[in-house]
Amino acid sequence: MARTELTNIRSPRVKAARRLAKRAFRERDLAFLAEGPQAVREALRLPGVVAELYVTAGAEARHADIVSAAAGAGVPVHLASGEVMAELAQTVTPQGLLAVCKLVHVPLAQAVTPGASLVAVLAHVRDPGNAGTVLRTADAAGADAVVFTDASVDPYNGKCVRASAGSLFHLPVATGAPVAEAVGRLKECGMRVLAADGAGERTLDDVDLSGPTAWIFGNEAWGLPDEVLRLADEVVRVPIYGQAESLNLATAAAVCLYASARTQREK
Amino acid sequence: MARTELTNIRSPRVKAARRLAKRAFRERDLAFLAEGPQAVREALRLPGVVAELYVTAGAEARHADIVSAAAGAGVPVHLASGEVMAELAQTVTPQGLLAVCKLVHVPLAQAVTPGASLVAVLAHVRDPGNAGTVLRTADAAGADAVVFTDASVDPYNGKCVRASAGSLFHLPVATGAPVAEAVGRLKECGMRVLAADGAGERTLDDVDLSGPTAWIFGNEAWGLPDEVLRLADEVVRVPIYGQAESLNLATAAAVCLYASARTQREK
Repeated sequence: MARTELTNIRSPRVKAARRLAKRAFRERDLAFLAEGPQAVREALRLPGVVAELYVTAGAEARHADIVSAAAGAGVPVHLASGEVMAELAQTVTPQGLLAVCKLVHVPLAQAVTPGASLVAVLAHVRDPGNAGTVLRTADAAGADAVVFTDASVDPYNGKCVRASAGSLFHLPVATGAPVAEAVGRLKECGMRVLAADGAGERTLDDVDLSGPTAWIFGNEAWGLPDEVLRLADEVVRVPIYGQAESLNLATAAAVCLYASARTQREK
Repeated sequence: MARTELTNIRSPRVKAARRLAKRAFRERDLAFLAEGPQAVREALRLPGVVAELYVTAGAEARHADIVSAAAGAGVPVHLASGEVMAELAQTVTPQGLLAVCKLVHVPLAQAVTPGASLVAVLAHVRDPGNAGTVLRTADAAGADAVVFTDASVDPYNGKCVRASAGSLFHLPVATGAPVAEAVGRLKECGMRVLAADGAGERTLDDVDLSGPTAWIFGNEAWGLPDEVLRLADEVVRVPIYGQAESLNLATAAAVCLYASARTQREK
Protein backbone atom coordinates (compact mmCIF):
# COMPACT_ATOMS: atom_id res chain seq x y z
CA MET A 1 0.00 0.00 0.00
CA ALA A 2 1.34 3.43 -0.85
CA ARG A 3 2.58 5.29 2.18
CA THR A 4 3.75 8.54 0.61
CA GLU A 5 0.78 10.85 0.24
CA LEU A 6 0.49 12.79 -2.99
CA THR A 7 -0.14 16.39 -1.98
CA ASN A 8 0.94 18.39 -5.02
CA ILE A 9 -1.91 19.01 -7.43
CA ARG A 10 0.66 20.12 -10.00
CA SER A 11 2.67 16.92 -10.01
CA PRO A 12 2.97 15.27 -13.45
CA ARG A 13 1.12 12.19 -12.21
CA VAL A 14 -1.87 14.18 -10.97
CA LYS A 15 -1.91 16.29 -14.11
CA ALA A 16 -1.83 13.19 -16.31
CA ALA A 17 -4.83 11.74 -14.52
CA ARG A 18 -6.66 15.07 -14.32
CA ARG A 19 -6.60 15.63 -18.04
CA LEU A 20 -8.64 12.45 -18.56
CA ALA A 21 -11.66 14.56 -17.66
CA LYS A 22 -11.43 15.72 -21.27
CA ARG A 23 -12.48 13.49 -24.15
CA ALA A 24 -9.54 14.38 -26.37
CA PHE A 25 -7.11 13.18 -23.72
CA ARG A 26 -9.13 10.05 -23.00
CA GLU A 27 -8.88 9.17 -26.68
CA ARG A 28 -5.18 9.99 -26.79
CA ASP A 29 -4.31 8.09 -23.61
CA LEU A 30 -6.88 5.28 -24.06
CA ALA A 31 -7.91 5.75 -20.43
CA PHE A 32 -10.68 7.27 -18.35
CA LEU A 33 -11.59 8.00 -14.75
CA ALA A 34 -13.98 5.97 -12.61
CA GLU A 35 -14.96 7.58 -9.31
CA GLY A 36 -16.36 6.20 -6.10
CA PRO A 37 -16.36 2.80 -4.40
CA GLN A 38 -19.07 1.22 -6.56
CA ALA A 39 -17.43 2.03 -9.89
CA VAL A 40 -13.95 1.11 -8.64
CA ARG A 41 -15.15 -2.20 -7.21
CA GLU A 42 -16.83 -3.15 -10.49
CA ALA A 43 -13.81 -2.05 -12.53
CA LEU A 44 -11.52 -4.25 -10.40
CA ARG A 45 -13.61 -7.30 -11.28
CA LEU A 46 -12.37 -6.99 -14.85
CA PRO A 47 -8.73 -8.09 -14.91
CA GLY A 48 -6.33 -5.53 -16.32
CA VAL A 49 -8.79 -2.64 -16.48
CA VAL A 50 -7.68 -0.55 -13.51
CA ALA A 51 -4.31 1.04 -14.26
CA GLU A 52 -3.95 3.11 -11.10
CA LEU A 53 -5.96 3.77 -7.97
CA TYR A 54 -6.03 7.04 -6.05
CA VAL A 55 -7.33 6.89 -2.51
CA THR A 56 -7.54 9.33 0.41
CA ALA A 57 -6.57 8.17 3.88
CA GLY A 58 -10.20 8.34 4.97
CA ALA A 59 -11.42 6.26 2.02
CA GLU A 60 -8.61 3.75 2.54
CA ALA A 61 -9.95 3.13 6.04
CA ARG A 62 -13.57 2.91 4.86
CA HIS A 63 -12.88 0.74 1.82
CA ALA A 64 -9.96 -1.45 2.90
CA ASP A 65 -11.43 -4.36 0.89
CA ILE A 66 -11.28 -2.41 -2.37
CA VAL A 67 -7.81 -1.06 -1.73
CA SER A 68 -6.43 -4.47 -0.87
CA ALA A 69 -8.13 -6.03 -3.91
CA ALA A 70 -6.39 -3.43 -6.07
CA ALA A 71 -3.02 -3.95 -4.42
CA GLY A 72 -3.48 -7.72 -4.69
CA ALA A 73 -4.10 -7.37 -8.41
CA GLY A 74 -0.85 -5.45 -8.80
CA VAL A 75 -2.55 -2.11 -9.33
CA PRO A 76 -0.41 0.85 -8.22
CA VAL A 77 -2.23 2.50 -5.30
CA HIS A 78 -1.53 6.17 -4.62
CA LEU A 79 -2.44 7.76 -1.33
CA ALA A 80 -3.83 11.20 -2.20
CA SER A 81 -4.45 14.26 -0.08
CA GLY A 82 -7.97 15.66 0.02
CA GLU A 83 -6.79 18.48 -2.19
CA VAL A 84 -5.39 16.13 -4.83
CA MET A 85 -8.60 14.08 -4.76
CA ALA A 86 -10.67 17.23 -5.18
CA GLU A 87 -8.49 18.12 -8.18
CA LEU A 88 -8.98 14.70 -9.78
CA ALA A 89 -12.60 14.07 -8.93
CA GLN A 90 -15.40 15.57 -10.98
CA THR A 91 -17.94 15.52 -8.17
CA VAL A 92 -18.63 18.19 -5.60
CA THR A 93 -18.16 15.79 -2.70
CA PRO A 94 -15.58 13.23 -3.85
CA GLN A 95 -15.87 9.83 -2.24
CA GLY A 96 -12.11 9.45 -1.90
CA LEU A 97 -11.58 6.64 -4.41
CA LEU A 98 -10.75 7.16 -8.05
CA ALA A 99 -9.38 4.75 -10.62
CA VAL A 100 -7.61 5.43 -13.87
CA CYS A 101 -9.05 2.71 -16.12
CA LYS A 102 -8.20 1.42 -19.56
CA LEU A 103 -10.97 1.87 -22.11
CA VAL A 104 -13.34 -1.10 -21.95
CA HIS A 105 -15.37 -0.87 -25.14
CA VAL A 106 -15.18 -3.56 -27.78
CA PRO A 107 -15.68 -3.53 -31.56
CA LEU A 108 -19.31 -3.53 -32.69
CA ALA A 109 -19.00 -7.02 -34.15
CA GLN A 110 -17.80 -8.31 -30.81
CA ALA A 111 -20.48 -6.51 -28.76
CA VAL A 112 -23.36 -7.61 -30.96
CA THR A 113 -23.26 -11.28 -31.85
CA PRO A 114 -25.73 -13.82 -33.24
CA GLY A 115 -27.84 -15.17 -30.40
CA ALA A 116 -28.20 -11.80 -28.65
CA SER A 117 -31.72 -11.25 -27.27
CA LEU A 118 -31.71 -7.62 -26.19
CA VAL A 119 -29.51 -4.71 -27.21
CA ALA A 120 -29.84 -0.97 -26.51
CA VAL A 121 -28.57 1.55 -29.04
CA LEU A 122 -28.00 5.14 -27.98
CA ALA A 123 -28.27 7.25 -31.11
CA HIS A 124 -28.06 11.00 -30.60
CA VAL A 125 -28.24 10.79 -26.80
CA ARG A 126 -26.37 13.91 -25.73
CA ASP A 127 -26.92 14.09 -21.99
CA PRO A 128 -24.27 11.96 -20.26
CA GLY A 129 -26.47 11.41 -17.19
CA ASN A 130 -29.25 10.04 -19.39
CA ALA A 131 -26.80 7.88 -21.32
CA GLY A 132 -25.35 6.39 -18.13
CA THR A 133 -28.82 5.75 -16.75
CA VAL A 134 -29.84 3.93 -19.94
CA LEU A 135 -26.66 1.84 -19.72
CA ARG A 136 -27.47 0.94 -16.10
CA THR A 137 -31.06 0.09 -17.02
CA ALA A 138 -29.99 -2.03 -19.99
CA ASP A 139 -27.69 -3.96 -17.67
CA ALA A 140 -30.50 -4.42 -15.13
CA ALA A 141 -32.84 -5.59 -17.89
CA GLY A 142 -30.28 -8.22 -18.88
CA ALA A 143 -29.27 -6.69 -22.21
CA ASP A 144 -26.48 -8.41 -24.10
CA ALA A 145 -24.82 -5.17 -25.19
CA VAL A 146 -25.15 -1.41 -25.40
CA VAL A 147 -24.11 0.50 -28.51
CA PHE A 148 -23.24 4.22 -28.38
CA THR A 149 -23.32 5.52 -31.96
CA ASP A 150 -20.96 8.21 -33.21
CA ALA A 151 -23.62 10.88 -32.67
CA SER A 152 -24.04 10.07 -28.99
CA VAL A 153 -22.18 11.25 -25.94
CA ASP A 154 -18.90 9.57 -24.99
CA PRO A 155 -19.57 6.62 -22.64
CA TYR A 156 -16.42 7.56 -20.72
CA ASN A 157 -17.70 11.04 -19.86
CA GLY A 158 -17.49 11.32 -16.07
CA LYS A 159 -21.21 11.91 -15.59
CA CYS A 160 -22.05 8.93 -17.79
CA VAL A 161 -19.66 6.67 -15.87
CA ARG A 162 -21.18 7.79 -12.56
CA ALA A 163 -24.79 7.42 -13.76
CA SER A 164 -24.02 3.93 -15.06
CA ALA A 165 -23.27 2.91 -11.45
CA GLY A 166 -20.74 0.29 -12.51
CA SER A 167 -22.71 -1.06 -15.47
CA LEU A 168 -20.07 0.19 -17.90
CA PHE A 169 -18.00 -2.72 -16.58
CA HIS A 170 -20.78 -5.30 -16.74
CA LEU A 171 -21.72 -5.77 -20.35
CA PRO A 172 -20.12 -5.26 -23.76
CA VAL A 173 -20.25 -1.63 -24.86
CA ALA A 174 -19.45 -0.52 -28.40
CA THR A 175 -18.90 3.10 -29.30
CA GLY A 176 -18.28 5.30 -32.30
CA ALA A 177 -20.07 3.41 -35.08
CA PRO A 178 -22.47 5.27 -37.37
CA VAL A 179 -26.06 4.31 -36.61
CA ALA A 180 -26.50 2.69 -40.06
CA GLU A 181 -23.57 0.39 -39.40
CA ALA A 182 -24.96 -0.52 -35.96
CA VAL A 183 -28.39 -1.29 -37.39
CA GLY A 184 -26.79 -3.37 -40.15
CA ARG A 185 -24.95 -5.46 -37.62
CA LEU A 186 -28.05 -5.91 -35.44
CA LYS A 187 -30.09 -7.14 -38.41
CA GLU A 188 -27.24 -9.39 -39.53
CA CYS A 189 -27.42 -10.98 -36.09
CA GLY A 190 -31.11 -11.68 -36.50
CA MET A 191 -32.47 -8.92 -34.31
CA ARG A 192 -35.63 -6.92 -34.88
CA VAL A 193 -34.71 -3.25 -34.69
CA LEU A 194 -37.25 -1.00 -32.99
CA ALA A 195 -36.84 2.77 -32.85
CA ALA A 196 -38.39 4.26 -29.70
CA ASP A 197 -39.99 7.52 -30.74
CA GLY A 198 -43.11 9.48 -29.93
CA ALA A 199 -43.84 9.49 -33.68
CA GLY A 200 -44.39 5.73 -33.73
CA GLU A 201 -47.71 4.56 -35.13
CA ARG A 202 -47.81 1.50 -32.93
CA THR A 203 -47.35 1.47 -29.19
CA LEU A 204 -45.43 -0.86 -26.96
CA ASP A 205 -48.73 -2.60 -26.23
CA ASP A 206 -49.24 -3.50 -29.90
CA VAL A 207 -45.90 -4.99 -30.90
CA ASP A 208 -44.62 -8.49 -30.42
CA LEU A 209 -41.59 -8.26 -28.17
CA SER A 210 -40.92 -11.96 -27.77
CA GLY A 211 -38.07 -12.29 -30.29
CA PRO A 212 -34.53 -10.89 -30.26
CA THR A 213 -34.96 -7.13 -30.11
CA ALA A 214 -32.71 -4.10 -30.40
CA TRP A 215 -34.04 -0.74 -29.21
CA ILE A 216 -32.79 2.55 -30.62
CA PHE A 217 -33.13 5.55 -28.32
CA GLY A 218 -32.81 9.09 -29.59
CA ASN A 219 -32.28 12.61 -28.48
CA GLU A 220 -33.76 14.06 -25.28
CA ALA A 221 -35.37 16.98 -27.04
CA TRP A 222 -36.18 15.95 -30.57
CA GLY A 223 -36.24 12.15 -30.66
CA LEU A 224 -34.76 10.38 -33.66
CA PRO A 225 -34.09 11.86 -37.12
CA ASP A 226 -36.04 10.49 -40.09
CA GLU A 227 -33.07 8.63 -41.54
CA VAL A 228 -32.78 6.64 -38.31
CA LEU A 229 -36.52 5.98 -38.17
CA ARG A 230 -36.29 4.63 -41.74
CA LEU A 231 -33.50 2.23 -40.80
CA ALA A 232 -35.59 0.58 -38.09
CA ASP A 233 -37.94 -2.32 -38.71
CA GLU A 234 -40.58 -0.43 -36.78
CA VAL A 235 -41.05 2.85 -34.94
CA VAL A 236 -42.69 2.26 -31.58
CA ARG A 237 -43.94 4.73 -29.01
CA VAL A 238 -44.47 4.27 -25.31
CA PRO A 239 -48.21 4.78 -24.82
CA ILE A 240 -49.13 7.94 -22.94
CA TYR A 241 -52.23 7.19 -20.90
CA GLY A 242 -52.38 10.56 -19.15
CA GLN A 243 -51.77 14.16 -20.18
CA ALA A 244 -47.97 14.18 -20.26
CA GLU A 245 -46.61 15.15 -23.64
CA SER A 246 -43.81 12.63 -23.49
CA LEU A 247 -41.54 10.71 -21.17
CA ASN A 248 -38.00 11.54 -20.13
CA LEU A 249 -35.56 9.64 -22.36
CA ALA A 250 -34.17 7.41 -19.62
CA THR A 251 -37.59 6.49 -18.26
CA ALA A 252 -38.91 5.74 -21.76
CA ALA A 253 -35.90 3.50 -22.32
CA ALA A 254 -36.57 1.73 -19.01
CA VAL A 255 -40.17 1.04 -19.98
CA CYS A 256 -39.13 -0.33 -23.41
CA LEU A 257 -36.21 -2.44 -22.18
CA TYR A 258 -38.18 -3.96 -19.32
CA ALA A 259 -41.18 -4.62 -21.55
CA SER A 260 -38.86 -6.63 -23.80
CA ALA A 261 -37.08 -8.37 -20.94
CA ARG A 262 -40.31 -9.39 -19.24
CA THR A 263 -41.98 -10.57 -22.46
CA GLN A 264 -38.94 -12.62 -23.45
CA ARG A 265 -39.00 -14.33 -20.07
CA GLU A 266 -42.73 -15.08 -20.17
CA LYS A 267 -42.27 -17.40 -23.13
CA MET B 1 -49.26 43.51 -23.09
CA ALA B 2 -46.81 45.24 -20.83
CA ARG B 3 -44.72 47.83 -22.63
CA THR B 4 -42.52 49.03 -19.81
CA GLU B 5 -39.60 46.70 -19.44
CA LEU B 6 -38.55 45.76 -15.92
CA THR B 7 -34.82 46.28 -15.80
CA ASN B 8 -34.07 46.70 -12.09
CA ILE B 9 -33.25 43.41 -10.42
CA ARG B 10 -33.66 45.12 -7.06
CA SER B 11 -37.24 46.28 -7.61
CA PRO B 12 -39.72 45.05 -4.99
CA ARG B 13 -41.66 43.09 -7.63
CA VAL B 14 -38.61 41.21 -8.84
CA LYS B 15 -37.45 40.57 -5.28
CA ALA B 16 -40.87 39.23 -4.31
CA ALA B 17 -40.81 36.77 -7.20
CA ARG B 18 -37.15 35.88 -6.72
CA ARG B 19 -37.60 34.79 -3.13
CA LEU B 20 -40.02 32.06 -4.25
CA ALA B 21 -36.92 30.06 -5.13
CA LYS B 22 -36.86 29.30 -1.39
CA ARG B 23 -39.30 26.89 0.19
CA ALA B 24 -39.96 29.04 3.26
CA PHE B 25 -41.14 31.90 1.06
CA ARG B 26 -43.19 29.61 -1.15
CA GLU B 27 -45.02 28.42 1.94
CA ARG B 28 -45.44 31.94 3.24
CA ASP B 29 -46.64 33.40 -0.05
CA LEU B 30 -48.54 30.29 -1.24
CA ALA B 31 -46.86 30.67 -4.62
CA PHE B 32 -44.08 29.16 -6.70
CA LEU B 33 -42.21 29.68 -9.96
CA ALA B 34 -42.77 27.77 -13.18
CA GLU B 35 -40.15 28.32 -15.88
CA GLY B 36 -40.17 27.81 -19.60
CA PRO B 37 -42.84 27.65 -22.30
CA GLN B 38 -44.00 24.11 -21.56
CA ALA B 39 -44.63 24.67 -17.84
CA VAL B 40 -46.23 28.08 -18.41
CA ARG B 41 -48.51 26.73 -21.13
CA GLU B 42 -49.70 23.90 -18.91
CA ALA B 43 -50.16 26.22 -15.94
CA LEU B 44 -52.33 28.56 -18.01
CA ARG B 45 -54.69 25.69 -18.77
CA LEU B 46 -55.72 25.69 -15.12
CA PRO B 47 -57.86 28.77 -14.52
CA GLY B 48 -56.64 31.04 -11.75
CA VAL B 49 -53.26 29.37 -11.27
CA VAL B 50 -50.93 31.84 -12.98
CA ALA B 51 -50.71 35.01 -10.89
CA GLU B 52 -48.11 36.86 -12.97
CA LEU B 53 -46.10 36.22 -16.10
CA TYR B 54 -42.58 37.51 -16.77
CA VAL B 55 -41.42 37.47 -20.35
CA THR B 56 -38.39 38.77 -22.21
CA ALA B 57 -38.86 40.60 -25.51
CA GLY B 58 -37.29 37.65 -27.35
CA ALA B 59 -39.58 35.11 -25.71
CA GLU B 60 -42.60 37.32 -26.32
CA ALA B 61 -41.87 37.11 -30.03
CA ARG B 62 -41.24 33.35 -29.95
CA HIS B 63 -44.24 32.51 -27.77
CA ALA B 64 -46.86 35.07 -28.73
CA ASP B 65 -49.59 32.42 -28.26
CA ILE B 66 -48.68 31.88 -24.62
CA VAL B 67 -48.35 35.57 -23.86
CA SER B 68 -51.70 36.38 -25.43
CA ALA B 69 -53.37 33.47 -23.64
CA ALA B 70 -52.07 34.89 -20.37
CA ALA B 71 -53.17 38.42 -21.18
CA GLY B 72 -56.54 37.12 -22.33
CA ALA B 73 -56.99 35.36 -18.99
CA GLY B 74 -56.35 38.63 -17.17
CA VAL B 75 -52.87 37.61 -15.98
CA PRO B 76 -50.54 40.60 -15.45
CA VAL B 77 -47.73 40.24 -18.01
CA HIS B 78 -44.41 41.92 -17.20
CA LEU B 79 -41.83 42.53 -19.88
CA ALA B 80 -38.47 41.72 -18.28
CA SER B 81 -34.93 42.51 -19.33
CA GLY B 82 -32.54 39.61 -19.84
CA GLU B 83 -30.89 40.57 -16.58
CA VAL B 84 -34.16 40.45 -14.63
CA MET B 85 -35.03 37.09 -16.20
CA ALA B 86 -31.60 35.72 -15.26
CA GLU B 87 -32.22 36.90 -11.71
CA LEU B 88 -35.62 35.20 -11.53
CA ALA B 89 -34.86 32.02 -13.43
CA GLN B 90 -33.13 29.10 -11.78
CA THR B 91 -31.68 27.71 -14.97
CA VAL B 92 -28.36 28.52 -16.57
CA THR B 93 -29.96 29.39 -19.89
CA PRO B 94 -33.40 30.82 -19.07
CA GLN B 95 -36.01 30.37 -21.77
CA GLY B 96 -37.45 33.83 -21.24
CA LEU B 97 -40.82 32.86 -19.78
CA LEU B 98 -41.54 32.53 -16.10
CA ALA B 99 -44.82 32.40 -14.24
CA VAL B 100 -45.57 33.08 -10.60
CA CYS B 101 -48.17 30.42 -9.85
CA LYS B 102 -50.51 29.75 -6.95
CA LEU B 103 -49.89 26.44 -5.20
CA VAL B 104 -51.84 23.69 -6.94
CA HIS B 105 -51.81 20.80 -4.48
CA VAL B 106 -54.99 19.48 -2.95
CA PRO B 107 -55.76 17.77 0.35
CA LEU B 108 -54.92 14.06 0.46
CA ALA B 109 -58.60 13.09 0.69
CA GLN B 110 -59.30 15.03 -2.47
CA ALA B 111 -56.30 13.66 -4.41
CA VAL B 112 -56.96 10.03 -3.50
CA THR B 113 -60.58 9.03 -3.91
CA PRO B 114 -62.50 5.73 -4.15
CA GLY B 115 -62.33 4.46 -7.72
CA ALA B 116 -58.68 5.44 -8.27
CA SER B 117 -56.74 2.81 -10.23
CA LEU B 118 -53.15 3.97 -9.97
CA VAL B 119 -51.43 6.28 -7.48
CA ALA B 120 -47.74 7.03 -6.95
CA VAL B 121 -46.48 7.90 -3.48
CA LEU B 122 -43.09 9.56 -3.08
CA ALA B 123 -41.87 8.71 0.40
CA HIS B 124 -38.38 9.90 1.26
CA VAL B 125 -37.55 10.99 -2.29
CA ARG B 126 -35.00 13.74 -1.73
CA ASP B 127 -33.72 14.53 -5.19
CA PRO B 128 -36.05 17.07 -6.82
CA GLY B 129 -35.08 15.97 -10.34
CA ASN B 130 -36.04 12.39 -9.53
CA ALA B 131 -39.27 13.51 -7.87
CA GLY B 132 -40.27 15.59 -10.89
CA THR B 133 -39.41 12.74 -13.25
CA VAL B 134 -41.59 10.33 -11.24
CA LEU B 135 -44.43 12.86 -11.34
CA ARG B 136 -44.08 13.14 -15.13
CA THR B 137 -43.96 9.35 -15.50
CA ALA B 138 -47.00 8.87 -13.24
CA ASP B 139 -48.88 11.35 -15.42
CA ALA B 140 -47.79 9.53 -18.59
CA ALA B 141 -48.84 6.20 -17.08
CA GLY B 142 -52.28 7.63 -16.42
CA ALA B 143 -52.04 7.77 -12.64
CA ASP B 144 -54.97 9.31 -10.80
CA ALA B 145 -52.81 11.17 -8.30
CA VAL B 146 -49.31 11.61 -6.90
CA VAL B 147 -48.68 11.94 -3.17
CA PHE B 148 -45.52 13.59 -1.82
CA THR B 149 -45.21 12.58 1.85
CA ASP B 150 -43.81 14.90 4.49
CA ALA B 151 -40.39 13.22 4.23
CA SER B 152 -40.07 13.94 0.51
CA VAL B 153 -38.81 16.92 -1.38
CA ASP B 154 -41.12 19.89 -1.98
CA PRO B 155 -43.00 19.42 -5.28
CA TYR B 156 -42.63 23.16 -5.90
CA ASN B 157 -38.85 23.02 -5.82
CA GLY B 158 -37.68 24.57 -9.12
CA LYS B 159 -35.85 21.45 -10.28
CA CYS B 160 -38.88 19.28 -9.52
CA VAL B 161 -41.20 21.62 -11.42
CA ARG B 162 -38.86 21.58 -14.42
CA ALA B 163 -38.38 17.80 -14.38
CA SER B 164 -42.15 17.31 -14.18
CA ALA B 165 -42.39 18.98 -17.62
CA GLY B 166 -45.86 20.38 -16.89
CA SER B 167 -47.24 17.28 -15.17
CA LEU B 168 -47.52 19.16 -11.88
CA PHE B 169 -50.48 20.87 -13.54
CA HIS B 170 -52.01 17.70 -14.98
CA LEU B 171 -53.08 15.51 -12.09
CA PRO B 172 -54.00 15.94 -8.43
CA VAL B 173 -50.91 16.24 -6.22
CA ALA B 174 -51.05 16.02 -2.44
CA THR B 175 -48.13 17.01 -0.27
CA GLY B 176 -47.07 17.05 3.37
CA ALA B 177 -48.96 14.07 4.78
CA PRO B 178 -47.08 11.50 6.86
CA VAL B 179 -46.67 8.25 4.95
CA ALA B 180 -48.90 6.33 7.42
CA GLU B 181 -51.73 8.74 6.77
CA ALA B 182 -51.27 8.43 3.01
CA VAL B 183 -51.27 4.62 3.18
CA GLY B 184 -54.36 4.71 5.39
CA ARG B 185 -56.19 6.80 2.85
CA LEU B 186 -55.10 4.58 -0.07
CA LYS B 187 -56.35 1.46 1.69
CA GLU B 188 -59.57 3.20 2.67
CA CYS B 189 -60.10 3.83 -1.05
CA GLY B 190 -59.70 0.15 -1.84
CA MET B 191 -56.17 0.26 -3.24
CA ARG B 192 -53.53 -2.40 -2.84
CA VAL B 193 -50.39 -0.68 -1.55
CA LEU B 194 -47.10 -1.95 -2.98
CA ALA B 195 -43.75 -0.72 -1.72
CA ALA B 196 -41.10 -0.74 -4.44
CA ASP B 197 -37.87 -1.84 -2.80
CA GLY B 198 -34.90 -4.01 -3.66
CA ALA B 199 -35.61 -5.92 -0.44
CA GLY B 200 -38.90 -7.28 -1.81
CA GLU B 201 -39.27 -11.06 -1.79
CA ARG B 202 -41.49 -11.07 -4.85
CA THR B 203 -40.71 -9.38 -8.13
CA LEU B 204 -42.86 -7.38 -10.45
CA ASP B 205 -43.24 -10.55 -12.55
CA ASP B 206 -44.85 -12.43 -9.67
CA VAL B 207 -47.50 -10.04 -8.41
CA ASP B 208 -50.99 -9.45 -9.70
CA LEU B 209 -51.17 -5.88 -10.90
CA SER B 210 -54.65 -5.94 -12.35
CA GLY B 211 -56.49 -4.26 -9.45
CA PRO B 212 -56.29 -0.68 -8.12
CA THR B 213 -52.68 -0.21 -7.07
CA ALA B 214 -50.68 2.41 -5.21
CA TRP B 215 -46.90 2.32 -5.49
CA ILE B 216 -44.64 3.72 -2.78
CA PHE B 217 -41.20 4.83 -3.93
CA GLY B 218 -38.39 5.47 -1.48
CA ASN B 219 -35.05 7.11 -1.17
CA GLU B 220 -32.45 7.14 -3.96
CA ALA B 221 -29.72 5.71 -1.79
CA TRP B 222 -31.29 3.55 0.85
CA GLY B 223 -34.77 2.63 -0.34
CA LEU B 224 -37.63 2.59 2.14
CA PRO B 225 -37.39 2.36 5.94
CA ASP B 226 -38.79 -0.73 7.67
CA GLU B 227 -41.79 1.11 9.09
CA VAL B 228 -42.88 2.02 5.58
CA LEU B 229 -42.29 -1.52 4.28
CA ARG B 230 -44.51 -2.80 7.10
CA LEU B 231 -47.32 -0.44 6.15
CA ALA B 232 -47.47 -1.81 2.61
CA ASP B 233 -49.56 -4.81 1.59
CA GLU B 234 -46.52 -6.15 -0.19
CA VAL B 235 -42.89 -5.26 -0.87
CA VAL B 236 -42.05 -5.75 -4.52
CA ARG B 237 -38.76 -5.47 -6.34
CA VAL B 238 -38.05 -4.82 -9.98
CA PRO B 239 -36.29 -7.96 -11.20
CA ILE B 240 -32.64 -7.47 -12.08
CA TYR B 241 -31.82 -9.79 -14.97
CA GLY B 242 -28.25 -8.61 -15.44
CA GLN B 243 -25.41 -7.60 -13.14
CA ALA B 244 -26.61 -4.13 -12.09
CA GLU B 245 -26.99 -3.83 -8.35
CA SER B 246 -30.14 -1.76 -8.62
CA LEU B 247 -32.02 0.68 -10.79
CA ASN B 248 -32.10 4.45 -10.55
CA LEU B 249 -35.18 5.51 -8.56
CA ALA B 250 -36.95 7.24 -11.43
CA THR B 251 -36.38 4.36 -13.85
CA ALA B 252 -37.55 1.79 -11.28
CA ALA B 253 -40.68 3.88 -10.76
CA ALA B 254 -41.24 4.00 -14.53
CA VAL B 255 -41.00 0.22 -14.81
CA CYS B 256 -43.46 -0.28 -11.91
CA LEU B 257 -45.98 2.34 -12.99
CA TYR B 258 -46.03 1.17 -16.59
CA ALA B 259 -46.27 -2.48 -15.57
CA SER B 260 -49.40 -1.54 -13.61
CA ALA B 261 -50.82 0.67 -16.34
CA ARG B 262 -50.30 -1.95 -19.04
CA THR B 263 -51.70 -4.81 -16.95
CA GLN B 264 -54.77 -2.81 -15.98
CA ARG B 265 -55.45 -2.09 -19.64
CA GLU B 266 -55.00 -5.72 -20.74
CA LYS B 267 -57.99 -6.81 -18.70
